[in-house]
Amino acid sequence: MKKTSLPIGMHDKLFKRAKVMYDLERDISDLLMEEGFSRIETPTLEYMEVFGDDISTEHYHLFDKQGNLLSLRPDITSQIGRLIASTRVNVPVKFSYSGKVFKYNEELRGLSNEHTQAGIEIVGYDANEAILDALLSAKKALEIAGLRDYQFEFSHAHLLQTIFACLDIPDRARKELSLLIQDKNITGLNSFTQKYPSEFDQLICQLPYLFGASQSVLERARSLTANGKILASLDQLEDLLSLLSDRISEVNLDLAQIPAMPYYTGVMFKVFGDKVPDAFVSGGRYDKLFERFGAKKLTAVGWTIDIDSIYQAIHHDISFEEVL
Amino acid sequence: MKKTSLPIGMHDKLFKRAKVMYDLERDISDLLMEEGFSRIETPTLEYMEVFGDDISTEHYHLFDKQGNLLSLRPDITSQIGRLIASTRVNVPVKFSYSGKVFKYNEELRGLSNEHTQAGIEIVGYDANEAILDALLSAKKALEIAGLRDYQFEFSHAHLLQTIFACLDIPDRARKELSLLIQDKNITGLNSFTQKYPSEFDQLICQLPYLFGASQSVLERARSLTANGKILASLDQLEDLLSLLSDRISEVNLDLAQIPAMPYYTGVMFKVFGDKVPDAFVSGGRYDKLFERFGAKKLTAVGWTIDIDSIYQAIHHDISFEEVL
Repeated sequence: MKKTSLPIGMHDKLFKRAKVMYDLERDISDLLMEEGFSRIETPTLEYMEVFGDDISTEHYHLFDKQGNLLSLRPDITSQIGRLIASTRVNVPVKFSYSGKVFKYNEELRGLSNEHTQAGIEIVGYDANEAILDALLSAKKALEIAGLRDYQFEFSHAHLLQTIFACLDIPDRARKELSLLIQDKNITGLNSFTQKYPSEFDQLICQLPYLFGASQSVLERARSLTANGKILASLDQLEDLLSLLSDRISEVNLDLAQIPAMPYYTGVMFKVFGDKVPDAFVSGGRYDKLFERFGAKKLTAVGWTIDIDSIYQAIHHDISFEEVL
Repeated sequence: MKKTSLPIGMHDKLFKRAKVMYDLERDISDLLMEEGFSRIETPTLEYMEVFGDDISTEHYHLFDKQGNLLSLRPDITSQIGRLIASTRVNVPVKFSYSGKVFKYNEELRGLSNEHTQAGIEIVGYDANEAILDALLSAKKALEIAGLRDYQFEFSHAHLLQTIFACLDIPDRARKELSLLIQDKNITGLNSFTQKYPSEFDQLICQLPYLFGASQSVLERARSLTANGKILASLDQLEDLLSLLSDRISEVNLDLAQIPAMPYYTGVMFKVFGDKVPDAFVSGGRYDKLFERFGAKKLTAVGWTIDIDSIYQAIHHDISFEEVL
């Protein structure tokens, strides 16, 4: 009976679960405002084009009464890009937000298609200061959420972007390579480089191993390529990590990190824990965010924290039944 | 250019406006939890049937990948009805919530189609205690929001329901009468009773005047009808108002109040201010809420506060430009 069941991926949250989710969103939002990030609220519905040039089967779409195709927002960063590109908001500016985002997950896995996220955007500031500011505020948000076991994993957008830009391969092969890297498919990557040989063969095959303690990963990566742009991005990562060394202790590199959005232009980071498969936080530098909306290039650094994932990590032992 | 404009009825909120909206939602939510209302979070998307038997042109609809018709929730009360009717939640129970709701307004008026609401539901308690509890918590919510000038306007669902049930008129005429009452159209109501005469002619024609200080409205209403059910509902209102007399000072009656939802079964109330046309709060008793979902009848009392309307009243002098 449709009246009493819920659509796939939609869930009720009750009692302790609802309270903890509420507290997490409130505490993180309050913290970010106290840290100087102005609150911003963007709408749940936007024109579909704000989130990509093509229709995505991962997004919820609907027509409005004028026949325009709308999307339930899958992320808030794109909205802030749209807003800064189209209004008279003065930069530099630091924003914080929280709210719902929507994304179709594979059916039958019981996953949630509606998530609560909070996050920040730092726009128009010196990029190095902005990255440090972003990382330290992310750490504070994780601390106020009560999360104990987590680690930051860093990468740089230029690394894979340079490889992909230099490879002269068909679109289908690009998608295949992207998936092989994401899956850390060692055999697949070996076969791929045999089929599409390039100066990056060694680096591509070793990507799944370029994970772990920063210094040894950087050394191995440098020994695998002579490409100037990639070496420069490794230097940038090294500089950042030395800046962070006495402020964030749990730091790894994961050079196989695929940019979550095409607009990433620099350092990228994710925060993971042991108990939950999804990242708690993902962010980085994405100066190209505004170009999509016809505006000039601006430095932009930001991150998003997934409050549902945080909840899972903190309260994975509270079952739904227990609190009814 | 679609990428940088917003769909009709969607708005960005920035800086002071976003902060004040956030504070209002948080302060009211915190208050309601402190007052003993358990937090609940329902999803943004539901099957269309949860909100009504027919498709409404006021709702946002979309198809999911299975071809089911979904709605962006226009209200949260219906969802709580669905939840209580379909899960093992023990009653009595008191819930509080906050979140976004979506409703198409007429185009070109610049109205917001996405609102932030907070509210409560009191389910399975003694109805008289529940109404008092609901009204006192609504008053506290208005106070914590910093609202000064407002007044409660009471009515009773049985009044118009009885008239409509007794009138033997076509559906089209029902809709016409409903609109005439809502618009307080004195001439229209006179013409209507000439076309469709009934025992309620006097009462119907006087409805627009049955507004104001409680005692005189009750006296006038009693002089206009001999219907037992209507007289009983007037007695109920009188009893409630005498209970409230030393707790809520700004109280009026408005007997032309149309039940906002068909499931109302008793006292109804709205809270209005001078500066804003929409009600700040609307609520009442709706024991039939659960029957729609195939569950047994339970006492249910609740209200919803519209945080956008509260914001307008408190900060109507802050323009968008001012804070950029």
